[in-house]
Amino acid sequence: MEQRLSMITLGVADLDASRHFYETLGWTRAGEEPGIVFFQLNGLVLGLYPRDALAEDAKLDPAGTGFGGIALAYNARSRSDVDAVLTEAARAGATILKPAEDVFWGGYSGYFADPDGHPWEVAWNPFWEITPEGYVRLGNQ
Amino acid sequence: MEQRLSMITLGVADLDASRHFYETLGWTRAGEEPGIVFFQLNGLVLGLYPRDALAEDAKLDPAGTGFGGIALAYNARSRSDVDAVLTEAARAGATILKPAEDVFWGGYSGYFADPDGHPWEVAWNPFWEITPEGYVRLGNQ
Repeated sequence: MEQRLSMITLGVADLDASRHFYETLGWTRAGEEPGIVFFQLNGLVLGLYPRDALAEDAKLDPAGTGFGGIALAYNARSRSDVDAVLTEAARAGATILKPAEDVFWGGYSGYFADPDGHPWEVAWNPFWEITPEGYVRLGNQ
Repeated sequence: MEQRLSMITLGVADLDASRHFYETLGWTRAGEEPGIVFFQLNGLVLGLYPRDALAEDAKLDPAGTGFGGIALAYNARSRSDVDAVLTEAARAGATILKPAEDVFWGGYSGYFADPDGHPWEVAWNPFWEITPEGYVRLGNQ
């Protein structure tokens, strides 16, 4: 697993209200995607996504104490690398929350939890560029 | 507020166990600081810090539902910029968790919460470099 982070997703109660907040701070969203908001940051992406849907994606109880409303994401460089990273994380003591599977947006993704339960998505997203240095660049930026 | 993120801090129950987990994944910590662990990522920093101390720093109840065990941080380019960003966030509808104050590690820092309660530290850290493009580079990396 390379030493990098691709995205942090904040679970939100009201997507429009949250988007409006960050836009009021002067931020510009990256393109228009239904049901999710992306902001291109310095080499990674901030996502806003409904909190219940985020918990469901990670197979966590949205009301449980184990879910803090945030998920980290590591974008692998290939589909097979997703399985390799999940295996490596499990060997290091992580809990596998969801084995990797094909997902509706066209990628391949699973989740592990670190020793404190912080959820990490491990994903292959064929639509996002990862530079050799590990920076994520959204295609429309 | 520039469109960037400087650090994400994971609150942990056992700093050594958490450090060991990420090191087992192949990551190398940035220098040796007592009581906190930093990993230099792609243009930002991942911090590991005791969960209770992280909550206390943000003036949040560590056992409360409002604290998910993670804090984001925006490093301002100057001390006065910290106050400006907190003012801007408050105007955009953020809750100020802690007005900026001098902190023991030699910086100046406050906290706001976004509409979903996600805590953001706004800090001036004279020991960390922020590149013109907004990337954070720890001095010893």
